[in-house]
Amino acid sequence: MTLTEVSAILLEKDDFAVITHRRPDGDTLGSAAALCSALRRAGKRAYILPNPEITERYAPVSDPFMAPPGFAGRFAVAVDVADVKLFPESFEGAVDLCIDHHPSNTRYAGALFLRTNSASCAQIVLELIEIMHGTVTKEEADALYVGLSTDTGCFMYSNTDAAAHTAAAKLIEAGADAAALNHLYFRTFTASRLALEGKIMSTLRFGAGGRIVVACVTLDMISAVGATEDDCDDLAALAGKVKGCEIAVTVRQLTEDHCKVSVRTNGTVNASDICRRFGGGGHPGAAGCELDGSPDRVCAVLAAAAAEFLP
Amino acid sequence: MTLTEVSAILLEKDDFAVITHRRPDGDTLGSAAALCSALRRAGKRAYILPNPEITERYAPVSDPFMAPPGFAGRFAVAVDVADVKLFPESFEGAVDLCIDHHPSNTRYAGALFLRTNSASCAQIVLELIEIMHGTVTKEEADALYVGLSTDTGCFMYSNTDAAAHTAAAKLIEAGADAAALNHLYFRTFTASRLALEGKIMSTLRFGAGGRIVVACVTLDMISAVGATEDDCDDLAALAGKVKGCEIAVTVRQLTEDHCKVSVRTNGTVNASDICRRFGGGGHPGAAGCELDGSPDRVCAVLAAAAAEFLP
Repeated sequence: MTLTEVSAILLEKDDFAVITHRRPDGDTLGSAAALCSALRRAGKRAYILPNPEITERYAPVSDPFMAPPGFAGRFAVAVDVADVKLFPESFEGAVDLCIDHHPSNTRYAGALFLRTNSASCAQIVLELIEIMHGTVTKEEADALYVGLSTDTGCFMYSNTDAAAHTAAAKLIEAGADAAALNHLYFRTFTASRLALEGKIMSTLRFGAGGRIVVACVTLDMISAVGATEDDCDDLAALAGKVKGCEIAVTVRQLTEDHCKVSVRTNGTVNASDICRRFGGGGHPGAAGCELDGSPDRVCAVLAAAAAEFLP
Repeated sequence: MTLTEVSAILLEKDDFAVITHRRPDGDTLGSAAALCSALRRAGKRAYILPNPEITERYAPVSDPFMAPPGFAGRFAVAVDVADVKLFPESFEGAVDLCIDHHPSNTRYAGALFLRTNSASCAQIVLELIEIMHGTVTKEEADALYVGLSTDTGCFMYSNTDAAAHTAAAKLIEAGADAAALNHLYFRTFTASRLALEGKIMSTLRFGAGGRIVVACVTLDMISAVGATEDDCDDLAALAGKVKGCEIAVTVRQLTEDHCKVSVRTNGTVNASDICRRFGGGGHPGAAGCELDGSPDRVCAVLAAAAAEFLP
């Protein structure tokens, strides 16, 4: 199926219900918003179906297109959704079309446009809109830039290829306010988040000559900086920033005597092997488990265990 | 002067001495390395003149092109160097050609190609090499990607425009290993750098309800974490990461009783107005000055001064 065929189908249909995925990120919401805008420019009715997990961070992207109560639509399009398990609870019907870039896509939709070598779904929607209308509007460009930039870690992740940069150039030429969006999504953080990161980074523990890095996040540290749950998002990524780190362990105290552990590795060691020893599991590069004990004790236990797995 | 004219001059001359600026960054060294490579491909002798301040971070970019002892060259080209004051001590002669993107360029060279709306000097050198040879080699692409990505903060700073992304796409297509370079320059940090950032971020001082953020970097903090000068690069960017910050002040202690101050603003306040009060200066968004006094005292003085400039 080509994007020209996708465009032809869309221009034939009407009353579009656009579906985004659970724990919605910038790519699913940005792609959905731009698609709704382009469909409306073609004279169609198009809304994003409710997604209860949209956060304050990305709500401004999707807000202008959220469906009114009771809207069901007659043609359902899922964007950036790899699996029906990832649907928000609000959708029960069949999906007519899916536009996606995840290799794990389960081919659940009536029609599927899948481009697994695309760094973001936003790039596919950009190309689709160019077919439909020639160019994207400033609003569409902003929404798609949010998708593209967040899925590539602002062009820092290893999925960033020439096509991602070419798409960024097009979006900026079409009016995307990259400077403002980068400021919002990548360059500013709450004072509590920065202070918490500061405490974690200045108390990292090292094992095996720096090949193991252990980050310890205690309840005291969290309360000292007044961090919210939002402020604690993805703390497990911090320890892995240390040059030379092969196994990054993050120990987060949940109660006085109980901790959650996240293990991230860079490929040489299987993180889920380490966590399985403590009743947990996960993926080769990212796994987790929970242990009883004080943060200090759990940090020591995990550092010792990780050392056994080093080649 | 056009780049085609620059190319014609370069192809006429030989024995090139390429000059980089003091405190050399990725852009001056990446541009110089790629230019040397392209000149050598044209059958010329070309070296980067010694620059004693090249750090471990960027040495791999320039190392293959550093001049042997005694090399003086017959045609001197300065890249990314705005002012003769920024020359490394090793160069005393006249500069035949300057290729630059700084608005502050003092027009010191015999011939000048200046494109002030270019986010990096590397983009100018890319275009020049395309004129000379059609395309860049993989090694030139890597060097130029270092220049482009570091001068744009990995495409995050407000100078990142469509042309910067178009150049990135070209360099990646030419073989630049963006994933490896991003890992090296943006995704991993020394343990000392992370610990220093941690200390700074967990001791930020706030003024005017968070509109002023002051970061204090003392000699004690630097020695406590064992930070090198490389580890202290661009610390002035940290305070501005706090959401709501309008004036970011960074005070770095140089000696017991003397501090360097960097002021960054987000557009509402002119940073150089603040620094001029203390005998310094700079740009509207980034300026600097030096003050006698302990770090605590200088932080307090600057916080008070900054408050007067808030609208």
